[in-house]
Amino acid sequence: MKSEELGRHILVEFYNCNSGILRDHKQIEEYMKQAALEAKATIVESVFHHFNPWGVSGAVIISESHLTIHTWPEYNYAAVDLFTCGGEVDPWSGFDYLAEKLESEKTETTEVARGSFDKIRNFSNRDMSGVNFSYKTIE
Amino acid sequence: MKSEELGRHILVEFYNCNSGILRDHKQIEEYMKQAALEAKATIVESVFHHFNPWGVSGAVIISESHLTIHTWPEYNYAAVDLFTCGGEVDPWSGFDYLAEKLESEKTETTEVARGSFDKIRNFSNRDMSGVNFSYKTIE
Repeated sequence: MKSEELGRHILVEFYNCNSGILRDHKQIEEYMKQAALEAKATIVESVFHHFNPWGVSGAVIISESHLTIHTWPEYNYAAVDLFTCGGEVDPWSGFDYLAEKLESEKTETTEVARGSFDKIRNFSNRDMSGVNFSYKTIE
Repeated sequence: MKSEELGRHILVEFYNCNSGILRDHKQIEEYMKQAALEAKATIVESVFHHFNPWGVSGAVIISESHLTIHTWPEYNYAAVDLFTCGGEVDPWSGFDYLAEKLESEKTETTEVARGSFDKIRNFSNRDMSGVNFSYKTIE
């Protein structure tokens, strides 16, 4: 079955992670950028912040959408989103990489289709019959 | 019923938006930052990019997690995520604001709990009995 959406969005709950890693904002930034590369995405820009007393929040904007992370070292928990567009990118490779690097012993994931072509067509007020839907990334 | 998760994450599909607005990265950045303020969140940093030939991607890191947007002006469509932590913040106010500003005539939303306290407790390898779960934002 051909994919019929603009983007794939994986919501990840990483439980039982290494608390020390979740506190280290430089390490988290490095891992998140590498996760983007593992997914074959192109990094545009990233922002990461270390919060007091602990916890890291960050986003990597990629040509193909984004990756974000929020960590709670005190609960050994991190919430990660991998949102990618285009058939060349595989968000699951980024997921696998992060699960290993965060040393997460339990993960839960939900994949959500973003921008279904059928919905965009059906909900539109204008004639979309001439519109060529494609999986192109924004460059 | 008391909320029992670290964060609330609203995934929004904005259909039938004003295409001109979706192309304007300065306007989109302004609207996304204001959406964070409407939600009573505290902005930490933001990154926005305009892509050729069109489309905007951006993230607003807030003390309480993040807001992101990706726009496809050619389809009058935008994918927005509002991820907030803490009881003081209301992501739905941000949603309402954006629906109006993007002139979206059709929206679909999904709210997802992130970091369920029960799951963190149940999946943990360590004794969590002394851990005080709270809705604090990372400051």
